Amino acid sequence: MRIALHYKNIDYEYRPIHLVKDGGEQRKEDYLSVNPKGEVPYFIDGDLKLSQSMAILSYIDEKWPQNPLFPDDRGLRSRCIQLSEIINSGIQPLQNLRVMQEVVKRFGCSDQEKKNWSSFWIEEGLSVLERELGLFKGPFSMGKDLTCVDLYLIPQIYNAKRFGIDLKRFPRLVDINDSCLKLDPFIKADPKNQPDSPSDL
Amino acid sequence: MRIALHYKNIDYEYRPIHLVKDGGEQRKEDYLSVNPKGEVPYFIDGDLKLSQSMAILSYIDEKWPQNPLFPDDRGLRSRCIQLSEIINSGIQPLQNLRVMQEVVKRFGCSDQEKKNWSSFWIEEGLSVLERELGLFKGPFSMGKDLTCVDLYLIPQIYNAKRFGIDLKRFPRLVDINDSCLKLDPFIKADPKNQPDSPSDL
Repeated sequence: MRIALHYKNIDYEYRPIHLVKDGGEQRKEDYLSVNPKGEVPYFIDGDLKLSQSMAILSYIDEKWPQNPLFPDDRGLRSRCIQLSEIINSGIQPLQNLRVMQEVVKRFGCSDQEKKNWSSFWIEEGLSVLERELGLFKGPFSMGKDLTCVDLYLIPQIYNAKRFGIDLKRFPRLVDINDSCLKLDPFIKADPKNQPDSPSDL
Repeated sequence: MRIALHYKNIDYEYRPIHLVKDGGEQRKEDYLSVNPKGEVPYFIDGDLKLSQSMAILSYIDEKWPQNPLFPDDRGLRSRCIQLSEIINSGIQPLQNLRVMQEVVKRFGCSDQEKKNWSSFWIEEGLSVLERELGLFKGPFSMGKDLTCVDLYLIPQIYNAKRFGIDLKRFPRLVDINDSCLKLDPFIKADPKNQPDSPSDL
């Protein structure tokens, strides 16, 4: 979401929410008074309040059409949604903090088992993407132009690295990551360049 | 997906894939020759092959614009995606067969624990939807017109019932379910009305 806002040169106010500190700021009254469900990311534009990254990105793309995130062609646009969803609904929900906490609570697994669980879903999803994105030639996920897929892929690769996943098996994804990380919107949106970045990132 | 095709009166050929029989038909060579990833649902239109329900529904809605699945208004359209994603990425990935099998394999949990895991995510998601859809008045999720949200909600409620979840806590969702199940596209798409329906459904 940060990447999209930078890519489209949209001014925004950033309110960092720390998911771990003090049991999670997303569960504190301050944040819940704005967003009763306590989810992140959360996007506010006038009266409109949105959660769910696909909804937020679609809205941003329609309201600020410069530097489009989805291809014009109907078939390619649906492929763009498909490839984004491989991360959004295929990887992310299975490896996020909340689900990992629930796995530990219910099944009392070790830190290693918890890590294995998340790594399994990340590696499986990235394998699918390595094959799928190999069908497109060019610096970005779907070829010569940046799309929504890149906006999902780069943070997911960042996350894969944090889990210690060996990216050698994913040369196409590594190439795309390298291309994107040279671009201004990705540099500005990098977690370590945020005002709330913890020093250990 | 079946509901959308019926709602828009689109002729289609239905190829049932049994996810459990013989270790899962989605893993057999016959199906993998069509769809190497072995996922369902899978949609083919000419050269275009799509997985991921959000991609398939967006494509169907753009190619066959009669009986639209998304509101015209930009804000409402993004809300429609958000509410659909609460099921698509917030519930479905955490309670599907594949994830349940992995939970059992890794953590050796009992049938009851497996059921509790799925029920937890379903109930949590339905609670959010009960509150969200209470903001709209009318027979359907977003008010007077059927939308994509209903296409996600009705199968999810069907699934919740299979898990034995008490729906009394979700009166708004039950009302929407009742309204939808009176409509032809939902009757035709009902699992028990499919050619491959097992007799125990």
